[in-house]
Amino acid sequence: MQYENLTLHTDKYEINMMYAHWHHGTAKQRAVFEAYFRKLPFGNGFAVFAGLRRFVEYVRSIRFDEETIAYLKGQEENYDPTFLDELRRYRFSGDIWSVEEGTIVFANEPLVRIEGTVFETHLLETALLNFINYQTLIATKAARIRQVAGTDPLMEFGTRRAQEADAAVWGARAACIAGFNSTSNLRAGMLFGIPTAGTHAHAWVQQHDSEEQAFERFAEALPNQVTLLVDTYDTLASGVPGAIRTAKRMEERGQRMQAIRLDSGDLAYLSKEARRMLDEAGLPYVKIVASNDLDENIIMNLKAQGARIDSWGVGTQLITAADQPSLGGVYKLVEREKDGQREPVIKISANPEKVTTPGAKDVYRIVSRTTGLAIADYEALTGEPEALSGQPLELFDPVRPYIRRTAANYDAEALLKPIFAGGELVHELPSLEELRAYHAKQLKLFRPELLRKLNPESYPVVLSPKTWRLKMDMLEKHKEFGSE
Amino acid sequence: MQYENLTLHTDKYEINMMYAHWHHGTAKQRAVFEAYFRKLPFGNGFAVFAGLRRFVEYVRSIRFDEETIAYLKGQEENYDPTFLDELRRYRFSGDIWSVEEGTIVFANEPLVRIEGTVFETHLLETALLNFINYQTLIATKAARIRQVAGTDPLMEFGTRRAQEADAAVWGARAACIAGFNSTSNLRAGMLFGIPTAGTHAHAWVQQHDSEEQAFERFAEALPNQVTLLVDTYDTLASGVPGAIRTAKRMEERGQRMQAIRLDSGDLAYLSKEARRMLDEAGLPYVKIVASNDLDENIIMNLKAQGARIDSWGVGTQLITAADQPSLGGVYKLVEREKDGQREPVIKISANPEKVTTPGAKDVYRIVSRTTGLAIADYEALTGEPEALSGQPLELFDPVRPYIRRTAANYDAEALLKPIFAGGELVHELPSLEELRAYHAKQLKLFRPELLRKLNPESYPVVLSPKTWRLKMDMLEKHKEFGSE
Repeated sequence: MQYENLTLHTDKYEINMMYAHWHHGTAKQRAVFEAYFRKLPFGNGFAVFAGLRRFVEYVRSIRFDEETIAYLKGQEENYDPTFLDELRRYRFSGDIWSVEEGTIVFANEPLVRIEGTVFETHLLETALLNFINYQTLIATKAARIRQVAGTDPLMEFGTRRAQEADAAVWGARAACIAGFNSTSNLRAGMLFGIPTAGTHAHAWVQQHDSEEQAFERFAEALPNQVTLLVDTYDTLASGVPGAIRTAKRMEERGQRMQAIRLDSGDLAYLSKEARRMLDEAGLPYVKIVASNDLDENIIMNLKAQGARIDSWGVGTQLITAADQPSLGGVYKLVEREKDGQREPVIKISANPEKVTTPGAKDVYRIVSRTTGLAIADYEALTGEPEALSGQPLELFDPVRPYIRRTAANYDAEALLKPIFAGGELVHELPSLEELRAYHAKQLKLFRPELLRKLNPESYPVVLSPKTWRLKMDMLEKHKEFGSE
Repeated sequence: MQYENLTLHTDKYEINMMYAHWHHGTAKQRAVFEAYFRKLPFGNGFAVFAGLRRFVEYVRSIRFDEETIAYLKGQEENYDPTFLDELRRYRFSGDIWSVEEGTIVFANEPLVRIEGTVFETHLLETALLNFINYQTLIATKAARIRQVAGTDPLMEFGTRRAQEADAAVWGARAACIAGFNSTSNLRAGMLFGIPTAGTHAHAWVQQHDSEEQAFERFAEALPNQVTLLVDTYDTLASGVPGAIRTAKRMEERGQRMQAIRLDSGDLAYLSKEARRMLDEAGLPYVKIVASNDLDENIIMNLKAQGARIDSWGVGTQLITAADQPSLGGVYKLVEREKDGQREPVIKISANPEKVTTPGAKDVYRIVSRTTGLAIADYEALTGEPEALSGQPLELFDPVRPYIRRTAANYDAEALLKPIFAGGELVHELPSLEELRAYHAKQLKLFRPELLRKLNPESYPVVLSPKTWRLKMDMLEKHKEFGSE
């Protein structure tokens, strides 16, 4: 398993479709695909886009090397040598637009748009969805947790329950984009420059003759990062008193204990008692860290009960997005080449929300100049000039067509930025710090009613009149076709 | 992110504890850790162990190279050069026992036992749990699905919704151990030799002037693996009739269509109608494949309704273990070194099921010679001779102490096999095919009442009298200590 080439991080059918196009001489026809999801996760009012860096690295690293080719050859006798040569030469040569990581995004708007030959665009589907579905999910979950935590430090502690190694590091990064402060995972720290955090295990205590000896030895060894786990035997009877004595001895050495950590029991009660004990001992600076299957609901409830917890270690519930462990992002063809011309395509479905919106599209965030708040996201066909012109804009919400609004005094920001042009990376990927700052700024564009975690207000994603007409015309055409 | 060294796939606190031990000169003390979970997932009556191959590869690949060392140095000023040298020299030199992948396992029995210095054993915790928690979860979910699917082919289709790239391939492998037949993920196919399966996307149809043209072209290109997706426009009005015409043209060319695939709509109704249409067209050999958010409950219900589905593509629900996306496996110290002697340790908790069972243990599966069925799993301290002696065995169930049973005519198989001895790999990792066969044989050891997915019978995991007495004695000692 030491073969790390990710080129085949894809479903077999992608290669089969590439082959079938190649076989029929249609492999170089142009195609435009858009990736989006149809439903916000967790009942949230927004999602936080993530996964772009990973996808960019994937696109740039695709190489059908000899090991890969040999494998494919063994898989399918139809794959003839000329086709395999075509794979050997695969380099993505098309264009990719994407929203930036950390952007607040909504259902049914294109998050990534990919244009190129059918050959090269098919290959990218599976990996793209795998990366953005997971990372967007975790960034969104992290944003929910950040919202209830206020300004408290949030630590990502999920590695042991993460769904394998990649989820641990990319999940930690996604959480960090959306406001987490640190991770326990050292590899994530090393790869992405995320600050790391950690305390000690119960095993550390059990390896000593007494809890207090364990505390003392830990404090001696790592005086600048002493967070003591106080629940190995009895939190209030032995853990906290022992930690207090250690803190006092540290003071004698001119050192300061950082925190104690509660990892079981009633966190509301224990934190209040521990706080009182620490304060009475003259240790108001020793913080209280809590962990143990926390999520946004538990944190909110603990705060409502007056828990005296200063920072939060969040594991399983975040890193697996436990209440909804998948995001249903899809990759849909919106334009094809027909007789040398671009032609929009639609996918019909008995399920109305599964009908696609045809045509290659841009998305603009319409922000009121009066309030500085976002009014709607506006999808328009690429090249439609109106969107950015500053002219009054009809905001036609296909979900609620009876609401007609017009934006007059607004700024429009294009959310899809060019990432690859002609196969070249043209976008400088921001640092994690920059993404965090960008995400924080994004949040300010929206009213708190939209951002709240329970029953949020819904935000309009509207279609330009031209896009809407195109969709209606194509639906009509298919209806005729269907009734033939 | 092209840095693939997994050494730091660990929580910061492991390195901190290693450092603290090193600092105090206790790094070479012996420790025994056991990994187990406390509760079966999905309300299932058993779990299917997986993750060992991945863990073995991890242990063997650990290298604190200069990049890693430089990172750690920058993280913590206390890490002095001699400690970092110790890390540079890290090679696991201890012993590891583990149950084999594919084994049916239960809550609260050791699945992996690791013995070595505290220095080397601490490091392994996070990665071990990350691997076995996820892979055991997926293998168990797959076993549930296999059970309702009978002998129907099962295809793993989850990559686009998997939690990042590692989950896609290791999840596919875990599913395969527990009875899945193929995966759509080519990388999993290449890395592990899993047969791969795939059809085509809706986009393939949209790229053509008509659905039937798309079918025809696909069949021409890949005549030996034609599974046509028939729901792009209207399954019964255009999809199935078009597929039938293509199948007929294939027959004229001396070829046979494999299957049609239903991916939306009412799968019970559509499959019955499609079957009827295919049969009436003289195509009884064309199979029907279904996909679309399937899980063990939906498959069972579809079968109960007489759906005519031959094989099943299972994605999201399997690969994310959607109804319970994490397994709570833990890694607990059971013995430490004290004054040069091994000494059992216990972890007390206000939560009774969190109290650990002290002492390094083996687990034996007690199988009746009369019925050939497993009666109980029997935990004994390592070196206890009774377990394998064939003497009548008292089966003392700590969960139900009022039930006293004795096994007389039995075979006892040690579930924990030596994997590493003195740091050397001493176990030949079986091939995937061998693991599949082993898993299938494992299932035969248990009554169907225990294997069923809803309200299964529970299986006793019992403690040897010596283990039980040790636990009670240590609890007693702690009680006295607590009441001081």
